Amino acid sequence: MSQMSFSGGDNQTKQIQEMVTNVKKHFGQLCQLFAAYTRKTARLRDKADLLVKEVHFYGDTETPNLRKGLKLFADQLAKVQDYRHAQVERLEAKVVEPLKSYGTILRFNRENLKATLSARSREVQQLQQLERMRQKNPSDRQIIVSLAESNLQRATMNATRTTLQLEEAIDEFEKKKIKDIKTIFTEFITIEMAFHAKALEVYTTAFHHIQDVEEDEDLQVSIGLILGLLLLLASCVFCLSSFASIISKPVQQLSFYHFASLPLTL
Amino acid sequence: MSQMSFSGGDNQTKQIQEMVTNVKKHFGQLCQLFAAYTRKTARLRDKADLLVKEVHFYGDTETPNLRKGLKLFADQLAKVQDYRHAQVERLEAKVVEPLKSYGTILRFNRENLKATLSARSREVQQLQQLERMRQKNPSDRQIIVSLAESNLQRATMNATRTTLQLEEAIDEFEKKKIKDIKTIFTEFITIEMAFHAKALEVYTTAFHHIQDVEEDEDLQVSIGLILGLLLLLASCVFCLSSFASIISKPVQQLSFYHFASLPLTL
Repeated sequence: MSQMSFSGGDNQTKQIQEMVTNVKKHFGQLCQLFAAYTRKTARLRDKADLLVKEVHFYGDTETPNLRKGLKLFADQLAKVQDYRHAQVERLEAKVVEPLKSYGTILRFNRENLKATLSARSREVQQLQQLERMRQKNPSDRQIIVSLAESNLQRATMNATRTTLQLEEAIDEFEKKKIKDIKTIFTEFITIEMAFHAKALEVYTTAFHHIQDVEEDEDLQVSIGLILGLLLLLASCVFCLSSFASIISKPVQQLSFYHFASLPLTL
Repeated sequence: MSQMSFSGGDNQTKQIQEMVTNVKKHFGQLCQLFAAYTRKTARLRDKADLLVKEVHFYGDTETPNLRKGLKLFADQLAKVQDYRHAQVERLEAKVVEPLKSYGTILRFNRENLKATLSARSREVQQLQQLERMRQKNPSDRQIIVSLAESNLQRATMNATRTTLQLEEAIDEFEKKKIKDIKTIFTEFITIEMAFHAKALEVYTTAFHHIQDVEEDEDLQVSIGLILGLLLLLASCVFCLSSFASIISKPVQQLSFYHFASLPLTL
């Protein structure tokens, strides 16, 4: 019987041990993955920050209307990154850290489990010792009975105490685990939701800034440059006719640098 | 005059050249940064995909109610990643690719600019040659006049033609640039907005899935395990008393394996 009941008990202890090991393993992996997700979000924020800087730099070199639009867009993009930065900090504090702290809780539970297991193994040893004694001295029934009573009672009481402690610890651990999973996952969802809601709001403003860029206004500034080139060409044609008329005058009146005084210079 | 007007024209050509170089430089950098932003978004999606898998794995090892909650949450998190994947693909097609294609447009403009510059430099050379001829043979006015007329006319016509071509190209380029910037940035904003709106919607569902996890229901499953341990202890106590009564019977009746038939085995 002892072998069967103890192996049954061992299975249950093993089951609890596996449960704790399983939670330790999965909480560790969840912690690592949430941390990696947070790190990648931080990298995305950094890249977007570089993009903000570049849009500002580019805006500085552009025509006034486009410059204004680009800079307003860059400001909104920067605002999204501020919210992303807050998201990263909150994910670290409310998701990654609480998952890390499970290490301590799990260590405590493993120690309790060890105490129960050693109490139970003592109980098995007492029974085995009793069996050996019975086989050696089959006639000494009274001694065996008193030994069995005292040893097994002590061992069983010990095991009862530690099992009750473990029961309390596991109960508390399970309660805390479900509550904490709900809290951590709810925190993750609300942090993400807050970011997405803010980003949506900020991008709506950015959208209007870009739509407000007048296409024709800036085109006229660029056309100004081209008109300059055309004026230059007109001056060349005028210069050609002036040159022809000057060159037909006496040579002594001719000085190449007289052209400099002409009103054609741009 | 020629030196002044030509240097004025050179400044304008230089200005246009700088404008094209500037756009080339900044569009290149914007393209690289938008591509990097897209890549980081893809990495974030990959990490979140691993997180989805891990939540599923962990859910498989948990009590039914928590398992259901975790798996429903994982499904929603996976949905957000599907939207993020669509965001990555759309950013590549609608933001990065159009910015890349500016390379071709800018090469075309640089070639036009080169043609204008060489036409203008030929014009300057014609004038300088004419000046040298005038200094060498101050009396040959008629030859100089005819040379001036034919050479300068040809050079000016050439420059006019290429400048007009450039004007058209720059005009078109400027129009296209402002329009494309507006299109690209609007695409970026709407792609981001679509993603944030979808993520917000999906996380709202995920939030309810996590809130729906009953804390007490699962606790009873865990308590079942602990009750098993307690039953085991009770069996030990019962075993102790049975053992004491059996051991007081004659030794030949005693067999350790008789315990196996007891109803106490768990």
